[in-house]
Amino acid sequence: MSDDTTARLLVTCPDCPGIVASVSSFFYNHGANITALDQHSTDPEGGTFFMRVEFQTPHLDISRPLLSQAFSQAVADRYQMDWKISYASDRKKMAIFVSKYDHVLLELLWRWSRHELPTDIVMVISNHGDLKEAVESFGVPFHEIPVNQENKEEAEQRALGILEGKADLIILARYMQILTESFVEQYVNQIINIHHSFLPAFVGADPYRQAYEKGVKLIGATAHYVTAELDKGPIIEQDVIRVSHRYKRAHLRQLGQDIERSVLFRAVKWHLEDRIIVYKNRTIVFV
Amino acid sequence: MSDDTTARLLVTCPDCPGIVASVSSFFYNHGANITALDQHSTDPEGGTFFMRVEFQTPHLDISRPLLSQAFSQAVADRYQMDWKISYASDRKKMAIFVSKYDHVLLELLWRWSRHELPTDIVMVISNHGDLKEAVESFGVPFHEIPVNQENKEEAEQRALGILEGKADLIILARYMQILTESFVEQYVNQIINIHHSFLPAFVGADPYRQAYEKGVKLIGATAHYVTAELDKGPIIEQDVIRVSHRYKRAHLRQLGQDIERSVLFRAVKWHLEDRIIVYKNRTIVFV
Amino acid sequence: MSDDTTARLLVTCPDCPGIVASVSSFFYNHGANITALDQHSTDPEGGTFFMRVEFQTPHLDISRPLLSQAFSQAVADRYQMDWKISYASDRKKMAIFVSKYDHVLLELLWRWSRHELPTDIVMVISNHGDLKEAVESFGVPFHEIPVNQENKEEAEQRALGILEGKADLIILARYMQILTESFVEQYVNQIINIHHSFLPAFVGADPYRQAYEKGVKLIGATAHYVTAELDKGPIIEQDVIRVSHRYKRAHLRQLGQDIERSVLFRAVKWHLEDRIIVYKNRTIVFV
Amino acid sequence: MSDDTTARLLVTCPDCPGIVASVSSFFYNHGANITALDQHSTDPEGGTFFMRVEFQTPHLDISRPLLSQAFSQAVADRYQMDWKISYASDRKKMAIFVSKYDHVLLELLWRWSRHELPTDIVMVISNHGDLKEAVESFGVPFHEIPVNQENKEEAEQRALGILEGKADLIILARYMQILTESFVEQYVNQIINIHHSFLPAFVGADPYRQAYEKGVKLIGATAHYVTAELDKGPIIEQDVIRVSHRYKRAHLRQLGQDIERSVLFRAVKWHLEDRIIVYKNRTIVFV
Repeated sequence: MSDDTTARLLVTCPDCPGIVASVSSFFYNHGANITALDQHSTDPEGGTFFMRVEFQTPHLDISRPLLSQAFSQAVADRYQMDWKISYASDRKKMAIFVSKYDHVLLELLWRWSRHELPTDIVMVISNHGDLKEAVESFGVPFHEIPVNQENKEEAEQRALGILEGKADLIILARYMQILTESFVEQYVNQIINIHHSFLPAFVGADPYRQAYEKGVKLIGATAHYVTAELDKGPIIEQDVIRVSHRYKRAHLRQLGQDIERSVLFRAVKWHLEDRIIVYKNRTIVFV
Repeated sequence: MSDDTTARLLVTCPDCPGIVASVSSFFYNHGANITALDQHSTDPEGGTFFMRVEFQTPHLDISRPLLSQAFSQAVADRYQMDWKISYASDRKKMAIFVSKYDHVLLELLWRWSRHELPTDIVMVISNHGDLKEAVESFGVPFHEIPVNQENKEEAEQRALGILEGKADLIILARYMQILTESFVEQYVNQIINIHHSFLPAFVGADPYRQAYEKGVKLIGATAHYVTAELDKGPIIEQDVIRVSHRYKRAHLRQLGQDIERSVLFRAVKWHLEDRIIVYKNRTIVFV
Repeated sequence: MSDDTTARLLVTCPDCPGIVASVSSFFYNHGANITALDQHSTDPEGGTFFMRVEFQTPHLDISRPLLSQAFSQAVADRYQMDWKISYASDRKKMAIFVSKYDHVLLELLWRWSRHELPTDIVMVISNHGDLKEAVESFGVPFHEIPVNQENKEEAEQRALGILEGKADLIILARYMQILTESFVEQYVNQIINIHHSFLPAFVGADPYRQAYEKGVKLIGATAHYVTAELDKGPIIEQDVIRVSHRYKRAHLRQLGQDIERSVLFRAVKWHLEDRIIVYKNRTIVFV
Repeated sequence: MSDDTTARLLVTCPDCPGIVASVSSFFYNHGANITALDQHSTDPEGGTFFMRVEFQTPHLDISRPLLSQAFSQAVADRYQMDWKISYASDRKKMAIFVSKYDHVLLELLWRWSRHELPTDIVMVISNHGDLKEAVESFGVPFHEIPVNQENKEEAEQRALGILEGKADLIILARYMQILTESFVEQYVNQIINIHHSFLPAFVGADPYRQAYEKGVKLIGATAHYVTAELDKGPIIEQDVIRVSHRYKRAHLRQLGQDIERSVLFRAVKWHLEDRIIVYKNRTIVFV
């Protein structure tokens, strides 16, 4: 599979002349063929520079560890880069948290089973048992960890225990519990949530009711990284759809769920393809 | 011109069986041909019913005043209707308030000069003189009424004086002054504002900066009726456009202005065509 | 379930004054409460008139057969109507034809299993056996009827035999065989196909390749009723998505399949809700 | 003005390793700061490579002519590049051809007068005199060159004479005459036409009528470079809008004209910003 030979570099650093030349020359000199290159600068004079390079590894003249070491010394240090190289063949491992709604969960499982998400889904964790059968029919382990007022911390500890070393990415697929700050800190920029509104318009509970009462003409969904502050983490992707008074409640819910599914799918896909850089509570998404 | 013979009825009333039959029979019996009929009910059992009927008047068997009287007695009273009949040949008169930005003003003037807005634009009022020439080139009177901290009330009085009896609709085309409650009360559901964000996401000043800092992936605009509460009036129309980090400030502003233009144009057109019913700070728009 | 009490009337007739009054009075007089009414006329003077009425039946004062008889005599004959009344409680029965692609098939099965499609899926017929297990996991019977150059007519006869009396609607969910004229004539305006292009732009085989070679900037899908002429039947729904040179083949295919899924879903839903009138190889869709 | 210091390189060449490194190093070594870089390859193995580089010139260590010479020798020859460097400060000169429809013409003039199009509009040529006053009010020279069956060639000669040395780009803004092959050959990939359909769906005359008769659910517009074959040149940009049976003819025309305006504006802007590469009758557009 050709993807196996794809690697990606993500870079954040102070902008200055010569970065593109240095990076591209470095890869060329080591036999890596650049197949995509994206860059962005907040300001060429004194701003911050972001870059994504996709390159092919079949003709690399050094091992992966040495490539990283060499890049660090030859390029990254010089430009004070915050950087990371990922290899498509090292598939990211993903865990999904869910409660009772199944639409986004099934979307992810279905896409994954059709090879549209380059990941290994290693487990689903739920505070309810309802979706056990659906999950297991995809061959994915299902863990039920009930959560209530009293046992919240303990439940999170159990989840962390099960997750440890097993997941690079956690998806909150309409998981109806708020994670504690200490949990979130274990997975910085590695937890993606889907919120069923065009954030920041309707934070908190029941955004559809809020949207209805405000009489908005578009409803939406937002996928974002989870931070300690509820519904305020860096936005990855959003979309909206036009609605009208003609739409009954069931129709609105179905449309809303369809947007949640497609927005979360894109956000997860971009994360898995190393297309996202987080900077100052915002994201740069190279698509 | 065929529009001359078009009339529209807008109705709000408690829902119950028989309304459509009563209304359509009434019009049929008086020689009015129904060419469009839209209805909506919040709930067929005990809800509120809304209807818009478009009909042609050439074969009316009674005069307009008598038609209204007859409708009131034969239909409206029976169903406790809040209702209004408008005739396309009675073109609504429109005033535009503007400051220095000209893009939405020019859009309206340009559409109007191409017969895309069935209205008479009777005047433009501005707190600055900058756009006088542009406005007058369309043959529209321009009034400069400077506004500052001290003279705000007096300035509004001057505007009210000029407007009196001359305008059925006021458009705030990026007018950078907040109207007082007493002004707004003179023109309930007759003042339309364009706000450069997807309300209620970014109320208040500088929504683009707010949107940028929150890192949203879509920027938008909202046309709404003006109420005493800033940026909280009934939303008529909204739209958004996808943006990315690639877009520079000037490009974002241009895209944002383009959405403002198209959103406000649609809202004004719908108002002029009697397509909007306001109910509980929301709008029913029959398009 | 509230849907059980919903009924719909679809009407096509020469336009003239009084139709809306007659129809709505008829229903009112028989205790039917109109909950939605849509109409359209190609021309109020001498044109063709189309109407869809949704009404509730709990308080009907006559039986369904009598209602039809009465409507025919009291209203339909007078206006020369082509008309039909359907009851939501008489769920339409649907058969799906499929070959090897599973994406639209699974979309329909999945939506159906979530009660988003008011139908009974009675069988899936395929010229291949590949999807047997997937279909049966939804509890739907699967019939394999191989088709080749020699047995095409015989295969269709087998299919017609299995279908007889069992299906009101046939969906070609990327079925890779062309149906014969004689088959199509058995199910006039009752076979819906999904074509993976913005028809009429790319009829025939391999529309993606055609689109690529023409360098179009949007790719699309079209759901249409099947007629004897390939890819030329009345269009029900279409949609497109923006693409660019950046998209690799697999990404394009995935996006294209996503549009096929959503376009076909909407078309099928509208058919099942009696929202579509076919007129002169076009459709009026009341949504 | 900051744009004055921007330059762009467009490249087409056989793909092979090292191109990005060579190009970026070349610019770095000559003091040019790369502020945007886009690339595309039809196939990393034996395919064709396309690149757009945007760079800033204030610190160039050689003159513009020398930069071109050096690039040719040091980079372009080695990779067999088809290439071109453009400087934003050398504004492209644009001529507009028009007949009687004014909507796209006015859109371009209006955008241009607001500094949204980095070009000098040097003249408008029309086969009718109707729009003379509108054009001249923008301070742009207007030339009327009547065209009929007999004088077509002669009229084109007159136009070519007026244009000679004055225009880098010709826009056909709903110009209702078909240019001869010999005219088109003078301006290869330098004439942009706006067609009021989603090409290739409705080539030729009266696409709206064709679209109506086919019952399509979306109407569109296409901007493309003009070639000798009518309506078949490389597509630059397209867009569509959803329509329904509810829209009357005047409304459809207005919506269609709005799409024509926005599609042509984007296509012209991209051309002026050197974002388009033509390859095998298709375009690569770096946006």
